[in-house]
Amino acid sequence: MRTTVGIIGAGPAGLLLARLLHNAGIDSVVLESRDRAYVERRQRAGILEQGTADVLRAAGAGERMDREGLRHDGIELRFDRTRHRVDFPALTGGRSVMVYAQTEVCKDLIALQLREGGPLLFEAEALAVEDAGTDTPRIRFRHEGREDVLECSYVVGCDGFWGVARKAIPAGLAQVFERTYPFGWLGILADVPPSHDELVYARHERGFALLSMRSPAVSRLYLQVPDGTDPGAWGDEEIWDELERRFETADDWYLRRGPITQKTVTPMRSYVHEPMRHGRLFLAGDAAHIVPPTGAKGLNLAAGDVVTFARALVHRQETGSPELLDAYSQTCLRRVWQAERFSYDMTTLLHRAPGATPFEDRLQLARLERIASSRAAETDLAEAYTGFPIG
Amino acid sequence: MRTTVGIIGAGPAGLLLARLLHNAGIDSVVLESRDRAYVERRQRAGILEQGTADVLRAAGAGERMDREGLRHDGIELRFDRTRHRVDFPALTGGRSVMVYAQTEVCKDLIALQLREGGPLLFEAEALAVEDAGTDTPRIRFRHEGREDVLECSYVVGCDGFWGVARKAIPAGLAQVFERTYPFGWLGILADVPPSHDELVYARHERGFALLSMRSPAVSRLYLQVPDGTDPGAWGDEEIWDELERRFETADDWYLRRGPITQKTVTPMRSYVHEPMRHGRLFLAGDAAHIVPPTGAKGLNLAAGDVVTFARALVHRQETGSPELLDAYSQTCLRRVWQAERFSYDMTTLLHRAPGATPFEDRLQLARLERIASSRAAETDLAEAYTGFPIG
Repeated sequence: MRTTVGIIGAGPAGLLLARLLHNAGIDSVVLESRDRAYVERRQRAGILEQGTADVLRAAGAGERMDREGLRHDGIELRFDRTRHRVDFPALTGGRSVMVYAQTEVCKDLIALQLREGGPLLFEAEALAVEDAGTDTPRIRFRHEGREDVLECSYVVGCDGFWGVARKAIPAGLAQVFERTYPFGWLGILADVPPSHDELVYARHERGFALLSMRSPAVSRLYLQVPDGTDPGAWGDEEIWDELERRFETADDWYLRRGPITQKTVTPMRSYVHEPMRHGRLFLAGDAAHIVPPTGAKGLNLAAGDVVTFARALVHRQETGSPELLDAYSQTCLRRVWQAERFSYDMTTLLHRAPGATPFEDRLQLARLERIASSRAAETDLAEAYTGFPIG
Repeated sequence: MRTTVGIIGAGPAGLLLARLLHNAGIDSVVLESRDRAYVERRQRAGILEQGTADVLRAAGAGERMDREGLRHDGIELRFDRTRHRVDFPALTGGRSVMVYAQTEVCKDLIALQLREGGPLLFEAEALAVEDAGTDTPRIRFRHEGREDVLECSYVVGCDGFWGVARKAIPAGLAQVFERTYPFGWLGILADVPPSHDELVYARHERGFALLSMRSPAVSRLYLQVPDGTDPGAWGDEEIWDELERRFETADDWYLRRGPITQKTVTPMRSYVHEPMRHGRLFLAGDAAHIVPPTGAKGLNLAAGDVVTFARALVHRQETGSPELLDAYSQTCLRRVWQAERFSYDMTTLLHRAPGATPFEDRLQLARLERIASSRAAETDLAEAYTGFPIG
């Protein structure tokens, strides 16, 4: 098999890239190790930055998003039993975000790809990227029980943190930046209308809590829990009780309860691999960088990476100049580090670190009060939340 | 001896308070353990926020400051061999700061106090504050070899971190918030015109450096050094060489050298004592809180505290209501915590912590790049640097 761009992974990064390339008349093949149903069910992010929504629209994949997605013009910060709303359009000159789950983005892109795009192989497990340093990189993979090779002009690794693509970059050429956090998120899906019409980020002495939603009928809620917590150790009523405590306010706001349909624990990690490119292998999304979910940046960073790659390749095809492809890593990393910074700041702003000193507790409150009282500080947050420019 | 307000300490807080009370027709006595020459020579802060300069002017103590002080409309951030200027008036609607040394503020206030104010006793060492919980607090002190008692209606402890006033607040009623840093500042005074006309804050792999000035002929420079460094261990040329390295730029900026006339090492600490008031004893300035010097906030916080106290006491005299006096601690602490936050942020933004991970290094650079590229982030810094509102 042979293609121009071999894409490993049919998550949002790989699928969006295939779509962007298709629209530009560049052929690609997507290899995905899981089956379609798994990919379409995999719960991940749910917040699209304005720029990400625009990219999906421009790619012809925004129709259902615009119909079913929920445009959000702000978030609420909750601390010390008070509530502060951050008004995105007022602070950023009209920008907002879209609540539309990653599962839905994937469904839309898969349907488009199967209908009019290039090959998208499910249960095709990439085993290794070879000859990344040459003009003819190859992906070895296993599909329908046998090994095969995909010969490419370019390989893009969209295969996540645990994928094989990154392993093809010699360790001696790479630098890894990493931080782990001593807590995770216990996340639930519940069949109950969200108790607030925007996301609520709560800082509480007992730990962070986040109220989010998948649709007008489905709530998505999170609790900070110690690293390594077994989700089964939390009973449903116990989860609702704890959420209620952490979202407490001085007014009469209350939390709607409903049947919990899913319970998972997500670890928290910051991770950056530099460079994001080696020869004709390019890393995109979680394959190159991880952010803790507090800033809702993971999916949006992935979208930025593949937009940057697609632009660079089109530029190469149109002008013959490899300039933008050569700058890929540097271009992406500028944005990646801003998102890493923001995600780290949102995480440390809102979570209760085990062993935090009273001084650190007060710093958190002073930061929240600053955001609530300074338009500049609030704008800084709103700009970052609605998204850093791509490229 | 008897007075309305007994003031312990003739640093800028105590002296300014005496002046404010004198102007309001309220009598006070200032007790200072050192002699006048010592107080007038004690090198400390050098940056007055716009609000502090305004307070000095309104108090009739701004004449020499306005003649000899240097109005600064910005600072320079230096990192990665690049330079970024933060333009205060453009970002804050016209605000700036004044470079005028604490020694000069003290000289001006001492001269005024001795000429027209109430008693200011040098070499009068406060031993203890007694009966703080009653209407008749007393200061026991030693002056000219004998013990005496100052009977007061109010006592204000402006006696610094090591003073006796804070000790009169029962430990069971207090909470202390604290953080120490594993580095300090080696500070020099040098008889050479400053190499830049505004302050330069440099973040460098080798550690933080600060270029400041006392006058157009005297430079004040600082180097981050390990905690507990002996200033004598640094030779003069070694200091200049290290400063030159840390201030390096890609352009042809250069550092002027000159004779070093003073060399000291300052430790770095964040500290807050809550509450700042117990009965009729009020703490102001370093007696209640310490900030690392990176944000230039120490003197300005002290000024805010005594302005708040003077206003509250005048309100009490004029209306009979103790409301503002009762709110003293809360009013001051709101501003104190913002300054603590800012000082902590400026410190961690610019210093190289021993054992910092590569991830933390990159976060620092991402923060600096954010300030240099987002007007909102830059405004947040400029607002904080030029000063939080008093009261």
